[in-house]
Amino acid sequence: MDVLAEAIKSLRVRGAPAIGIAGAFGVLLGLQDFKGCDKDVFFNCLNETTDFLNATRPTAVNLSWALNRMKRVADQFRQLDVAELKQRLLQEAVNIWEEDRKTCRRLGKHGAELIKNDFTVLTHCNTGALATADYGTALGVVFTAHQQGKKVHVFADETRPLLQGARLNTWELMNEGIAVTLICDNTAAFVMQQGKIDCVILGADRITANGDTANKIGTYNVAVIAEKHNVPFYVAAPYTTIDFNLTDGSQIPIEERNPDEVTNGFGRRTAPANTSVYSPAFDVTPNELISAIITEEGVIRPPFLTNLKKNAPNQG
Amino acid sequence: MDVLAEAIKSLRVRGAPAIGIAGAFGVLLGLQDFKGCDKDVFFNCLNETTDFLNATRPTAVNLSWALNRMKRVADQFRQLDVAELKQRLLQEAVNIWEEDRKTCRRLGKHGAELIKNDFTVLTHCNTGALATADYGTALGVVFTAHQQGKKVHVFADETRPLLQGARLNTWELMNEGIAVTLICDNTAAFVMQQGKIDCVILGADRITANGDTANKIGTYNVAVIAEKHNVPFYVAAPYTTIDFNLTDGSQIPIEERNPDEVTNGFGRRTAPANTSVYSPAFDVTPNELISAIITEEGVIRPPFLTNLKKNAPNQG
Repeated sequence: MDVLAEAIKSLRVRGAPAIGIAGAFGVLLGLQDFKGCDKDVFFNCLNETTDFLNATRPTAVNLSWALNRMKRVADQFRQLDVAELKQRLLQEAVNIWEEDRKTCRRLGKHGAELIKNDFTVLTHCNTGALATADYGTALGVVFTAHQQGKKVHVFADETRPLLQGARLNTWELMNEGIAVTLICDNTAAFVMQQGKIDCVILGADRITANGDTANKIGTYNVAVIAEKHNVPFYVAAPYTTIDFNLTDGSQIPIEERNPDEVTNGFGRRTAPANTSVYSPAFDVTPNELISAIITEEGVIRPPFLTNLKKNAPNQG
Repeated sequence: MDVLAEAIKSLRVRGAPAIGIAGAFGVLLGLQDFKGCDKDVFFNCLNETTDFLNATRPTAVNLSWALNRMKRVADQFRQLDVAELKQRLLQEAVNIWEEDRKTCRRLGKHGAELIKNDFTVLTHCNTGALATADYGTALGVVFTAHQQGKKVHVFADETRPLLQGARLNTWELMNEGIAVTLICDNTAAFVMQQGKIDCVILGADRITANGDTANKIGTYNVAVIAEKHNVPFYVAAPYTTIDFNLTDGSQIPIEERNPDEVTNGFGRRTAPANTSVYSPAFDVTPNELISAIITEEGVIRPPFLTNLKKNAPNQG
């Protein structure tokens, strides 16, 4: 489990849905060495495991959502013996995984309705198969449109500091035979100025009840330049990413990353020693800059405060 | 001279004013091996040299401006013998260099009037001593304010792909004892959203008669986010950067750089092989996003079309 927590923390497992799935299976890893049949000790071990995993990344809500589901199942079957309890937890982790796959497909289908033939889409960060159980959220929309026979061209922000756009989005798109052009993050505004972008689609790490969206650092920048150029700005995320407990984005905790990712990220030092760095992992885009939120339940339009709630699946 | 041309092309000599000065001395390098006293051959050699140097970078107007000054001096003293002509050209190159030093100081002084105590300034790319003959344009403004005893804090965009902000601006500011925080380019909008930035100051590679400004890629992005957050956006540039022959920014040629600077810039490949890349070296910021242009003749406010002309020094 330590290995998994490290993998989440270091971003080798990343993308909000993938973090949730990894967290669910992480609970099983944490419990696999548990011997004996003392229920109190078992539940102590379960709570320690979920607390430990929950502390790895503060921003993505999918992690705590998945861990809470695991705890709920354990509570529900508290009367069973430990072996059976572990079996139920394994089943729940598999359920979370399978649900994410179905969710991706449904989300992709709804989102693809927004993509016309010959559209050029701007992406930021990675939101494809490498961030979910299936073929992704924002990229899933692009993949679905492509499978429907639409011609789609993607401009991929490289996404500093860890270059998920350059390393992962390009790779996933080229794999699917979709045209992709890599740009530096600071170039997207110039590309929009030239009228080249038909819409922006990107993911989310946490969405609050009013639609404010925390996502990879630079997302807010993209939202501002999209507004300036009248380019529709779409957030693609499953309902598990929506945190109805928070009323607005100011309540979302924003993780700060290690300065070395900026100054020494590619094996070569690119800033003087002792340079002070500010490197938040995420920023928050206010709901008024978001044209629509693409979910597995459909394309949700403003006002998000009422429409997100109205379309929520029963399990919330 | 080949070495110098390569140095300009590869950006080891960079920054519009420094390119102009390097170009002027480059003419002398090109002529140093010229033997004999045939004036026609001498002038052929001069023209070949200036054409060759002029082709190294298309966007910065300072280069062609400096080369034209050298040619004008040669024409003016056409009656002198070759040795004397070379002497006059050397003197002119020294003049260009010294004028740039004085220009930087005057520009810095005018610009510093815009900086209040405790201001936080956002910079993009490098515009200091490493880009000019003296202590810079945009950074010169910061240095002057600092010397006047004002407390200034700089947020420096790292400036992808070549990281002039991370590598050069941080170093120059730390050298002067000025507080600097390095950020990824995509983080500036989030920093502005938090109300941390009092003004933006950056340089220019070419400004047209109406104030449209070509500068390092990402400048237009900064201009858009500054407008959104009501942050004053200042361009600092000497009059030599203003090209009155061009009426607006659409006429400025934009250089495209080698894709390897984006995909392989840190000695490690950071995108899949054969990834298509769009990497313009510059973008164009329309004049309506510019609060003022800081020149050696004063702080020029809109409307730029009339005010730039009105304040121009006689030699234009």
